[in-house]
Amino acid sequence: MKATIEKRLGLKELADKVVSAEEAAALISDGDVVGMSGFTRAGDAKVVPLALVERAKNEKFQIDVYTGASLGPEVDRYLAEAGVIRKRGPYQGEPALRNLINKGEVLYVDGHLSHVAELVRQNIYGPIKFAIIEACAITKDGYLIPTNSVGNSPILADFAENIIVELNISCSESFIGIHDIYVPEKQGDRGPIPVVSATDRIGEIGIKIDPKKIKAIVISENTDAPSLIVPPDEETDIMANNLLNFLRDEIKAGRLTSKLAPIQSGVGSVANAVLQGFQDSEFEDLEIYSEVLQDAVFHLIDAGKVTFASATSITLSEELGKEVFENMDKYADKLCLRPQEITNQPEIIRRLGLISVNAALEADIYGNVNSTHVSGTRMMNGIGGSGDFARNARLGIFVTKSYAKGGTISSIVPMVSHVDHTEHDVDVLITEQGVADLRGLAPKERVPLIIENCAHPDYKEQLWAYYNDAVKKTGNSQTPHNLEKVFSWYVNYAKNGTMVE
Amino acid sequence: MKATIEKRLGLKELADKVVSAEEAAALISDGDVVGMSGFTRAGDAKVVPLALVERAKNEKFQIDVYTGASLGPEVDRYLAEAGVIRKRGPYQGEPALRNLINKGEVLYVDGHLSHVAELVRQNIYGPIKFAIIEACAITKDGYLIPTNSVGNSPILADFAENIIVELNISCSESFIGIHDIYVPEKQGDRGPIPVVSATDRIGEIGIKIDPKKIKAIVISENTDAPSLIVPPDEETDIMANNLLNFLRDEIKAGRLTSKLAPIQSGVGSVANAVLQGFQDSEFEDLEIYSEVLQDAVFHLIDAGKVTFASATSITLSEELGKEVFENMDKYADKLCLRPQEITNQPEIIRRLGLISVNAALEADIYGNVNSTHVSGTRMMNGIGGSGDFARNARLGIFVTKSYAKGGTISSIVPMVSHVDHTEHDVDVLITEQGVADLRGLAPKERVPLIIENCAHPDYKEQLWAYYNDAVKKTGNSQTPHNLEKVFSWYVNYAKNGTMVE
Ligand SMILES: CC(C)(COP(=O)(O)OP(=O)(O)OC[C@H]1O[C@@H](n2cnc3c(N)ncnc32)[C@H](O)[C@@H]1OP(=O)(O)O)[C@@H](O)C(=O)NCCC(=O)NCCS
Ligand SMILES: CC(C)(COP(=O)(O)OP(=O)(O)OC[C@H]1O[C@@H](n2cnc3c(N)ncnc32)[C@H](O)[C@@H]1OP(=O)(O)O)[C@@H](O)C(=O)NCCC(=O)NCCS
Repeated sequence: MKATIEKRLGLKELADKVVSAEEAAALISDGDVVGMSGFTRAGDAKVVPLALVERAKNEKFQIDVYTGASLGPEVDRYLAEAGVIRKRGPYQGEPALRNLINKGEVLYVDGHLSHVAELVRQNIYGPIKFAIIEACAITKDGYLIPTNSVGNSPILADFAENIIVELNISCSESFIGIHDIYVPEKQGDRGPIPVVSATDRIGEIGIKIDPKKIKAIVISENTDAPSLIVPPDEETDIMANNLLNFLRDEIKAGRLTSKLAPIQSGVGSVANAVLQGFQDSEFEDLEIYSEVLQDAVFHLIDAGKVTFASATSITLSEELGKEVFENMDKYADKLCLRPQEITNQPEIIRRLGLISVNAALEADIYGNVNSTHVSGTRMMNGIGGSGDFARNARLGIFVTKSYAKGGTISSIVPMVSHVDHTEHDVDVLITEQGVADLRGLAPKERVPLIIENCAHPDYKEQLWAYYNDAVKKTGNSQTPHNLEKVFSWYVNYAKNGTMVE
Repeated sequence: MKATIEKRLGLKELADKVVSAEEAAALISDGDVVGMSGFTRAGDAKVVPLALVERAKNEKFQIDVYTGASLGPEVDRYLAEAGVIRKRGPYQGEPALRNLINKGEVLYVDGHLSHVAELVRQNIYGPIKFAIIEACAITKDGYLIPTNSVGNSPILADFAENIIVELNISCSESFIGIHDIYVPEKQGDRGPIPVVSATDRIGEIGIKIDPKKIKAIVISENTDAPSLIVPPDEETDIMANNLLNFLRDEIKAGRLTSKLAPIQSGVGSVANAVLQGFQDSEFEDLEIYSEVLQDAVFHLIDAGKVTFASATSITLSEELGKEVFENMDKYADKLCLRPQEITNQPEIIRRLGLISVNAALEADIYGNVNSTHVSGTRMMNGIGGSGDFARNARLGIFVTKSYAKGGTISSIVPMVSHVDHTEHDVDVLITEQGVADLRGLAPKERVPLIIENCAHPDYKEQLWAYYNDAVKKTGNSQTPHNLEKVFSWYVNYAKNGTMVE
């Protein structure tokens, strides 16, 4: 065995399990439920899935795939396009898989990311036949050390009948010690989860596994597919400023100190760009307690703004990724990667009092938010952890540009076409137009704030016309709507390519 | 001072604060934000509000009223009808107040009941000028002992500038020792909330108050308005059996033991009737960890089925109330009343792994639930704690009859007209027709279960026609909808008095 491999494989009794990707892929059977490591394109198994793609050229078989969150192209593009995925959960973000989902060719179970571990415990997805998990090392005392993400790997490894490990020797050894693995007991037998600060370590450095369950170890040097986000633009800069000004007002009101509170920042370009805005602000000594660390977090660490970042995965753009992952030791003492059951745990989110910033597709005049369904029917990515955070955070903030598709779509609508976050879960709405602070307001009090502060000027009049008519038609009820016309904007868009009436 | 009063007023320095209801009511000013005790018609202040009603006959003034949950007629009927309430939160259930809300005469802020304490801490409702709190006693070491409910009284008493106590000497002294008052520190400074079992006591027997804040003590002998629920009927009996059979299947599947898990049961007639169904079942040694204890809980205690019940209030029908409250010592060691921030805390709900059963107004073919808005516009009661429980419980179960208003309304619709619980928060749907277990299913997998097992036969065909058309129109997307027709059932009902096409 090569030295590079040997030093990553501490548990010598497993040496005879090292096989080729093809041999490992051959272990999977048609109909298997398979758990996979990986969270937002980070730390996913890559070579075994590609071997499954090869196998599918000569053989018809299908599996159900449950992961941490979205995976890279190996699974969510190539394996999906090979027709191997029957059912997929709990999050995805690849255009290829998205298309198959929206043609009804792949079943997709979207869900709160903090729920998945409980569903595994309760055997809801069916018995998990295999967990395929990327690891940086297997220590001699039997810990599997994850790579760029933890996601659901601990619970999947625990409940799977068999485990295939992708031992990724290109992963920096500096990752050893970054993870903090803690798995709660089953419900009813469980005590409090003792995280009381973003920096707390409560678990072990790796996933304790039963070596007997490991049926194959495949050596990999493939790196994660880089993040797909686009850089900040003029409008996201304005949104960032709107957020900063809102936080300054919170400090003035005595609700926050200048140290703020641990920040959670959502996935995608907009959430990343808004977080980036802290770089040129007066804020310092910031802590991140989030799900995914995107580019902005590392820029903020480099700039001395962020002192510590806790999350379940690190997903970076190509260039920054190279720099960070090759200098991991520089960041190691400022990072902690936890299972998503811990990063997204309501108990901890509420205890710490997070400031949570997630992106929305659209919001309505009463403050309901749609994060997932374009025109109420086509899945975009999934709800991810946005619900875990928004409902439990001190501040559940949603950001979106006020328009999409060159202005033919208004992101502020009479009624969102799919509700992911109800009016009770949305504290603050921010667009490039301004800020609507909805806390403590009745539905009709929210309307002027959302229309005047957040909607694009092209749509304000149209929104007021809808609302005023609805007030009249319902006799000024709690939440005025005209159900005959409420979705006419989408119908107009489908027919005429614009929401403008 | 009368002996009956003297023994309830341990803190002798407060003797000179005892005044008439009129004098206390005169302390309130136009524009005040007022916190009040009370939760689902239990433990609310009654005599001071009635004095405010009197005062309003000669004087125009308005206040904002925040409570635990719904209050009895003294506030939510008479005070509301007197025009004194400008704004009301976080829950109500009186037809009089409901009408004023739906005519736009009272602003109503509906919200998750576990959120209210955090909003008070953050001063979102504005500075609370007065808390008016019903108490069973004030002990000599300065604890205010609540009566039939705790609700938000501890946090309101803590943050209010002034306190008016309604010392209710008709409240049985056996209530002393039943309450367990624990108030978390502010977010960020807080540790875990150490409840690990429904029976745990973690706090003190009363609300520790600063005696200087007490500006008036009014003696009261008024009892709570009784619960408005109607008894079980043939259909709720079937629903109860459906629930019991579902739980039996969970035991067979190894997900529950015969001891089940602590049960939360929602407000209203249907949730009460369904819980009542346990009485003739094989289940024993049950624990309740709920918000409100309605009639069924006491029947189950009497029948030896329930060994312990934790909640934030006790709301009983007239006859049963007399029996229970006059024999409180018989129940004292089987009960614990906590602040609603503890009963409804996500941390504890998830840790204990509750079985949560709440009533819905309507559900849709994809599993979204509407608990609050009739036809999407008219407020019924509010979301209450249903979101706290459904999202965090081991089992988030919703119950509803498959139809309303004599069959002219289907409780299963293409798309709910208001979303309180998203498809991600609804595990199981139960009607008198049957059970739909939605866990782990993609939206299109849920449709046949909901239509075939839960919808009323009169509407099945119409639901299938909608769905099949939507599948065709969207090319079988993730969540097929035809936004042009999705709300036509409500439009039909408004025009023709029926949803039947
Ligand atoms: C909502 C979400 C899709 C936004 O992603 P983003 O990259 O920040 O936002 P963008 O504005 O670039 O929008 C992405 C796409 O949606 C489109 N879009 C945005 N708003 C739209 C709307 N109202 N209607 C239709 N399309 C819309 C954009 O045009 C863009 O399309 P393109 O990919 O064809 O260019 C993304 O944040 C997400 O998936 N959120 C849900 C999960 C989540 O919040 N997780 C956070 C927990 S850590
Ligand atoms: C949903 C809720 C209103 C049901 O109450 P309930 O007393 O069990 O149910 P009922 O079937 O008697 O319905 C109450 C009324 O709503 C009407 N209703 C029920 N479904 C309806 C529908 N789909 N459309 C219109 N009206 C409907 C009923 O006809 C009845 O009207 P009435 O008062 O004029 O007779 C009640 O449970 C609630 O307020 N829930 C939200 C809060 C909550 O869940 N808290 C629990 C946490 S502890």
